[in-house]
Amino acid sequence: MIRADKDLAFMLRYENIAWYENGEVRILDRRVYPMETKFVTCKRHEEVAQAIADMVTQSGGPYTAAAMGMALAAYECKDMKEADMLSYLEKAAYTLSHARPTTVSNMIKSVNSCLDAAKIAMAESKNVENAIFEKALSDVNRKYERYEKTGEFLASQFPQNGTVMTQCFGETIIGMMLRACRKHNKNIKFICPETRPYFQGARLTASCICDMGFDVTVITDNMPAYTMGQKKVDVFTSAADVITMDGYVVNKVGTFQIALAANYWGIPYFVTGTPDLAHKTIDTVKIEERDPALVMDALGKKTTMDGVKGFYPAFDITPPKLCNGVVTDKGIFTPYALYDYYKDVAESKIDATFCP
Amino acid sequence: MIRADKDLAFMLRYENIAWYENGEVRILDRRVYPMETKFVTCKRHEEVAQAIADMVTQSGGPYTAAAMGMALAAYECKDMKEADMLSYLEKAAYTLSHARPTTVSNMIKSVNSCLDAAKIAMAESKNVENAIFEKALSDVNRKYERYEKTGEFLASQFPQNGTVMTQCFGETIIGMMLRACRKHNKNIKFICPETRPYFQGARLTASCICDMGFDVTVITDNMPAYTMGQKKVDVFTSAADVITMDGYVVNKVGTFQIALAANYWGIPYFVTGTPDLAHKTIDTVKIEERDPALVMDALGKKTTMDGVKGFYPAFDITPPKLCNGVVTDKGIFTPYALYDYYKDVAESKIDATFCP
Repeated sequence: MIRADKDLAFMLRYENIAWYENGEVRILDRRVYPMETKFVTCKRHEEVAQAIADMVTQSGGPYTAAAMGMALAAYECKDMKEADMLSYLEKAAYTLSHARPTTVSNMIKSVNSCLDAAKIAMAESKNVENAIFEKALSDVNRKYERYEKTGEFLASQFPQNGTVMTQCFGETIIGMMLRACRKHNKNIKFICPETRPYFQGARLTASCICDMGFDVTVITDNMPAYTMGQKKVDVFTSAADVITMDGYVVNKVGTFQIALAANYWGIPYFVTGTPDLAHKTIDTVKIEERDPALVMDALGKKTTMDGVKGFYPAFDITPPKLCNGVVTDKGIFTPYALYDYYKDVAESKIDATFCP
Repeated sequence: MIRADKDLAFMLRYENIAWYENGEVRILDRRVYPMETKFVTCKRHEEVAQAIADMVTQSGGPYTAAAMGMALAAYECKDMKEADMLSYLEKAAYTLSHARPTTVSNMIKSVNSCLDAAKIAMAESKNVENAIFEKALSDVNRKYERYEKTGEFLASQFPQNGTVMTQCFGETIIGMMLRACRKHNKNIKFICPETRPYFQGARLTASCICDMGFDVTVITDNMPAYTMGQKKVDVFTSAADVITMDGYVVNKVGTFQIALAANYWGIPYFVTGTPDLAHKTIDTVKIEERDPALVMDALGKKTTMDGVKGFYPAFDITPPKLCNGVVTDKGIFTPYALYDYYKDVAESKIDATFCP
């Protein structure tokens, strides 16, 4: 996005994935990419929140989109008095961070970082819109630096020649993992379950891996358990929407059953991400249920007859006993001792760059 | 099909699922049903074999289609000399039974039953085509009688009020199971994973259950493990393409990982079918791999970019330790003692009605 790195095809492809400019936020529509490359243009911050709710972008995308949405909100209120402006931005922060229920606590970090930048700019009588935009970019860049380390730690668990199964789309972490594989001459084949109903595994993860020149095979979501045994998978890995402090992984639905299959075959499961202090236990996580019509549809074609119902939990919960390690920028932790990740960080220093 | 039972909506819907008449076999195209009700018409027995290979029909459908294909083959060779006719029918039996690799042994029973009828008709100078057609029908009817008992035994394992998860399309057994539920006033809600890539769960199982007036919910194939816990599923059940004598279940890919999830939650898994004496152990079963393009496609739309590969195993293997019972027309057997099923049957009496 910012640190456009010519070596990282995925970064070029996903450049401007969510970008604020001249009173508009443009978001790459990942629901149709790579079949179509089109952008959703938002002229109000509420439209950015709606785009997040509608899954125009997912994985790490909503955090950047929300931050860019804050720059847009600053543009919307630029002629207000300072007190009104702050209250307007606080309302916008609430709207943007609450677009989807499961990730609220991390989204709050992302928009609060922008609010802090706005307050400083106001105090110094600087342009609030620019200050938020610059903060959004610097948060993304700091996140990239952390993900680069995470990618290194993850790739360190791969054999020199082997097969890795992924789940859904881990965004930046996928690119960083691949770059680390290349740097260490690891010859890895990837297997990506397609990830219904949006096909992020088939459309996004597989495209990113293919773009970066690695061997990649797509399977449907009913095939991971059989394929793991048949193709001798060495490692299963996924990112996470939330990793609770008691070691539960909340990620795209399907992760749990692939972790069960990995456990059956004796294959380690490594999740990438950052333990979330906002969730001391799994009990505070709300699993989002989306419109049931979406699971009775494939790329716009209905798959069921009238009268049949649907159920669409967007995420599932993998218990710590099925996870062999939480891979972070500081190394790999057991899911049973995640406070260790924070032992040298003051809680006040935990900012937007700690979001997934 | 033959015993059209007004109470059984599924039978009416699936009537003429594969039917021989006047030199043609008509097969309901289950790849598009219920969105479209159209038939594939075969004017040669090789076209019937091709239709089976192309998944125009699956589950129990191919057995009837192959038998009807034998009647068509008899029509094709009706003007040959008797010796040539027999050799022609034997070749047709081979072609039809080998259309798909995983179910060959059962398919052979189905076509051999027709060959036997042909030989008797020749010896008695009767019309061979009619004799095969009549045999195909009587085999189907005897199978229905057996499935009716199987459906009773399966439903006996359901609570009076509860939730059952299915996998893929168990065809006749689904209808018989539902009829048994209704007979015993069991108030069961069903959950059907969609079954990619052909969506048989969404299109066929859910339609059949909905038609028969039961509550049915479709989920995508990455959701069974989470849904089992969330919706308090009581029983997981599937049919099988092969049940080996050492207790392995070969069924539509996905069954294995749902069985793993059921095991995690302590939910019993019951498979319906007949132990297959042609497979003393799992080692003799060949798992069919189909065209990889099919898993990179959803209802005719491509889901991956060029350069990405696919892998499509049509079936998977569930080990006996994950199966709580093999439900048959004679009762429920542990997968560890399947020879008990045959203790009162001479091997010579095992005919086409013992196919799935």
